[in-house]
Amino acid sequence: MTTQTTPTIEQALAKGKQAFMQMSTLSTDQKNDALEVLATLIEQNSEAILAANQQDLSENKESLDSALYQRLKLDEGKMTQLVQGIRQLKTLEDPTGKILAVTELDDDLILTKKSVPLGLIGIIFESRPDVMPQILSLILKSGNAVAFKGGREAKNTNGAFMELVINAMTQQLDYLPEGWATLFETREDVQAMLNYSQYVDLIIPRGSNELVQSIMSKTRIPVLGHADGVCHQYVHPSADLDKALEVVIDSKIQYVSACNALETLLVDKAIAEKFLPSFAKRAKTEGITVHACEQSIGYFDDATPATETDWRTEYGSLTVAVKIVDGLEAAIHHINTYASHHTDGIIAEDKVAQQVFLASVDSASVFANASSRFADGFRYGFGAEIGISTARTHARGPVGLEGLVSYKFTLEGHHNLVRDYVGVTPERQFTHKIVK
Amino acid sequence: MTTQTTPTIEQALAKGKQAFMQMSTLSTDQKNDALEVLATLIEQNSEAILAANQQDLSENKESLDSALYQRLKLDEGKMTQLVQGIRQLKTLEDPTGKILAVTELDDDLILTKKSVPLGLIGIIFESRPDVMPQILSLILKSGNAVAFKGGREAKNTNGAFMELVINAMTQQLDYLPEGWATLFETREDVQAMLNYSQYVDLIIPRGSNELVQSIMSKTRIPVLGHADGVCHQYVHPSADLDKALEVVIDSKIQYVSACNALETLLVDKAIAEKFLPSFAKRAKTEGITVHACEQSIGYFDDATPATETDWRTEYGSLTVAVKIVDGLEAAIHHINTYASHHTDGIIAEDKVAQQVFLASVDSASVFANASSRFADGFRYGFGAEIGISTARTHARGPVGLEGLVSYKFTLEGHHNLVRDYVGVTPERQFTHKIVK
Repeated sequence: MTTQTTPTIEQALAKGKQAFMQMSTLSTDQKNDALEVLATLIEQNSEAILAANQQDLSENKESLDSALYQRLKLDEGKMTQLVQGIRQLKTLEDPTGKILAVTELDDDLILTKKSVPLGLIGIIFESRPDVMPQILSLILKSGNAVAFKGGREAKNTNGAFMELVINAMTQQLDYLPEGWATLFETREDVQAMLNYSQYVDLIIPRGSNELVQSIMSKTRIPVLGHADGVCHQYVHPSADLDKALEVVIDSKIQYVSACNALETLLVDKAIAEKFLPSFAKRAKTEGITVHACEQSIGYFDDATPATETDWRTEYGSLTVAVKIVDGLEAAIHHINTYASHHTDGIIAEDKVAQQVFLASVDSASVFANASSRFADGFRYGFGAEIGISTARTHARGPVGLEGLVSYKFTLEGHHNLVRDYVGVTPERQFTHKIVK
Repeated sequence: MTTQTTPTIEQALAKGKQAFMQMSTLSTDQKNDALEVLATLIEQNSEAILAANQQDLSENKESLDSALYQRLKLDEGKMTQLVQGIRQLKTLEDPTGKILAVTELDDDLILTKKSVPLGLIGIIFESRPDVMPQILSLILKSGNAVAFKGGREAKNTNGAFMELVINAMTQQLDYLPEGWATLFETREDVQAMLNYSQYVDLIIPRGSNELVQSIMSKTRIPVLGHADGVCHQYVHPSADLDKALEVVIDSKIQYVSACNALETLLVDKAIAEKFLPSFAKRAKTEGITVHACEQSIGYFDDATPATETDWRTEYGSLTVAVKIVDGLEAAIHHINTYASHHTDGIIAEDKVAQQVFLASVDSASVFANASSRFADGFRYGFGAEIGISTARTHARGPVGLEGLVSYKFTLEGHHNLVRDYVGVTPERQFTHKIVK
């Protein structure tokens, strides 16, 4: 059976790559019109999609824990938000076709650097079926093509999106090529997708840490993602301690399983005695479990002693590690050593301390006096989020449309020859005049 | 023995990553001063470096073919050019610390996106010892750290650069941290470097296709490189045929082993009869071997029939594949199917044909009426070249300083909490006002 599956996936991916070439030539108006059709089709088929989602929920009731169940569940509120997000994306600037730089290499030889769509994007996601329309909207706006691999637990919902929305769009808009968005469903499909680097230009895994790490280890295709989110807040001696407490609590409990939730709280030695008693009290009220360092454990009624492992752990639950640090530099050093370079913050009134922290912490998002939960594409104003990256190449932090574009150089000349520009006394000299 | 080598490499890489943190805080003046010291030290030690290079040349005389021998050889001309390139880089803008975007998420919550250095860069290179000072200059200007792995055949030259230039710089300038530039020399070092993704942020292989492909298959660290360069020129019916011939010849023979040299010549059916006789004559004079398609083979005295394999081959020698194509679209289709997406050109007087080609060919560099040999960081005005990328993510085409930077987001707030911005009737609304 497997030997029959593989060529089919290859054909589908080859077709997707072919479709990308056509998608990359769409005009901004065509792309925005397609976004409107996408929004309308979701509105019109909302009932059928929610019914398919109900079927997934009842089929998987036994096997999913409550967090996964929540992630699988769609409701009218989520559907309305989806449609709003798609319409917001219409108002954003087209990320492709932008002139990024122009240089005159010589009077008659002009180099232009222009943004272009990226290619065929492979999306591997679990549970959350709302990922599919979100990603579709970003794919359309940026002129790319997409191959989805959804989770088995959401197969009815994903199937409804595929049939009622994607297929309907492709029929309705003759400028959308067959195969611009496809859906795969088996595990074998994932590995096949990861192997075809000649067709797939970028892989974006959306799901658990295990999923992301497993994908990253199995492919040569660039992967946009974050394996973990060990995020910090550091309470500086100059902090307004009442406000600091609220920022810390929001960072920790506003949505505990999010990758940008607080995992390790660093408290400056100088204010530990003032801050930790109120934090301990509040933690108890909120039901937060504490793993505390040797110096801080005395402030808590029932904390567990923290070990080296805690500094590297993403709990993803109502647990937090607490550590007393000896000053700003020690805090920065701890973060640069143990953080996953996702999102880390300082809470301080002292402007100099803020600036030193913002400049020295080597993370994708570095905050002063703000909840770590703000690290998110929608909150950053990107309209939607293709993913969050802890890589340093290509795209970093919350990623919107800019993670879906590349660039190319065009050179327009008058039969210029390199041989005229080389040698000990070249006939012609480069001017390298920067026009833009 | 191997078990002892590994920890040493890990320690060196860990130190390199540590050094990066300090390098990333250098001011533009410090970086430019360091470039001047680099240039001066190369000038002052030129004789000793050339003597070390002579030793490499005589030790390897028997084992290297003439092309590799040429790549290994340094001379005064190359040294002067190196020093000029380093001084040119001083005049370029600092690529880090640039404010890329500013958004007010709310009146009191400001998001800033700023360019930052990339990290510890691993460079694996063969033969060409001039790669080392070139890369060093780009590393300094961009505030990164570097770990080199040089080829055994250049060990004396590389050692001289390490001792007389890098070590001397580090001693002379106390703001350069120990370990900002290190040199490894054994094969075991390469694999170790490829394994330590926690320290090395980007790998750049500079050498043969085999080297690049082997590196790409062995690491999870992002690789900036190009596995091959199957470059095309397409002669359109509107071309000025005399000038077209010169552009084709320059693209093919100006430096045959370069990745941007012409490999497949596409000739439009409409002008084949006029163009190919003069091309065949010139090819003979220049000693070019031709692998010709069925329709074109009759124009050549002693061409080999081209097979499917020829369309995907980078000869890297005085051989060219020739194919007659049936119009502009067929040419674009051939290139998008067989090219390595490196550099491809059209030769045409017709402006519309030029624009269609420039927009539709999916390659890093797309040319109209210019030799393919212009695809090069120095010629593009980047000062020096860290490599050429055929990837679509991160950096594409000839890459200068911009391939050595990333970005980070800083968010400056007033104790803003996410809980105030969510829910059915949130207390606060995002403004998402784009300031820059």
